[in-house]
Amino acid sequence: MTKCVFCNLLAGKLPSSVVYEDDAVCALLDIQPVNPGHTLVIPKTHFESLCEVPPDVLSRLIAAAQRVVEGFNNTDLACEGANLFLADGEAAGQEVPHVHLHVFPRVVGDGFGLRFGAGYKDLPTRETLDRVAASLRAAIAKG
Amino acid sequence: MTKCVFCNLLAGKLPSSVVYEDDAVCALLDIQPVNPGHTLVIPKTHFESLCEVPPDVLSRLIAAAQRVVEGFNNTDLACEGANLFLADGEAAGQEVPHVHLHVFPRVVGDGFGLRFGAGYKDLPTRETLDRVAASLRAAIAKG
Repeated sequence: MTKCVFCNLLAGKLPSSVVYEDDAVCALLDIQPVNPGHTLVIPKTHFESLCEVPPDVLSRLIAAAQRVVEGFNNTDLACEGANLFLADGEAAGQEVPHVHLHVFPRVVGDGFGLRFGAGYKDLPTRETLDRVAASLRAAIAKG
Repeated sequence: MTKCVFCNLLAGKLPSSVVYEDDAVCALLDIQPVNPGHTLVIPKTHFESLCEVPPDVLSRLIAAAQRVVEGFNNTDLACEGANLFLADGEAAGQEVPHVHLHVFPRVVGDGFGLRFGAGYKDLPTRETLDRVAASLRAAIAKG
């Protein structure tokens, strides 16, 4: 057993319920689902953070997520919509330090939702947005 | 002006604060940010739902999201982690019917979080997970 629970799941050293697999990613059910069918799409290689994932694996990750959502609509699982959620870093709610993309079906009234901080209703001005965008745009362009 | 607010933003018919752009996607700031830097990555072509997005555009969408997260770490924006969130369908919280991926920085204590339904703490058995997985796996394999 390695220290990473997902690496152990992927190696079959812990029980898992797999819904999709290719050479780059594995999709298996979350043991604490938001709704039945809640899936985690996981790169087979251990990457702790999103920025470490190479482009080809990243493409496979999102393609698998799309296939899972298509799958929701072709089963008898209750599904009126779907969410994708990824937490990158402990401050963002990442509990297992191995990149994973949550994909879960939604139905009206399922009780899932987002909570926001105190200042969420104070909209920034366009001047503030433009200033933030200029800084971010420059950082992205530099790579 | 078309009916779609994002198509109007992308066409420059409404003001926006752009942080990244290529031929497939545009990334611009959300006017109601979870935290400063909150970005929406949007395909330039109008797709209402995730399953309509072709593989090459999907790859560019997630690649752009990764670049935005890298950008957060290279600005003076407060960033200790990041979340990616996508709502597919009104039941999942999709407010604009044009696919968009939220990418936002997180800091400890920012007040953002997830709410869960009443049954969230009742963990399913492995038998239940395996039954759901078998059904979903078959649906995904059929495509």
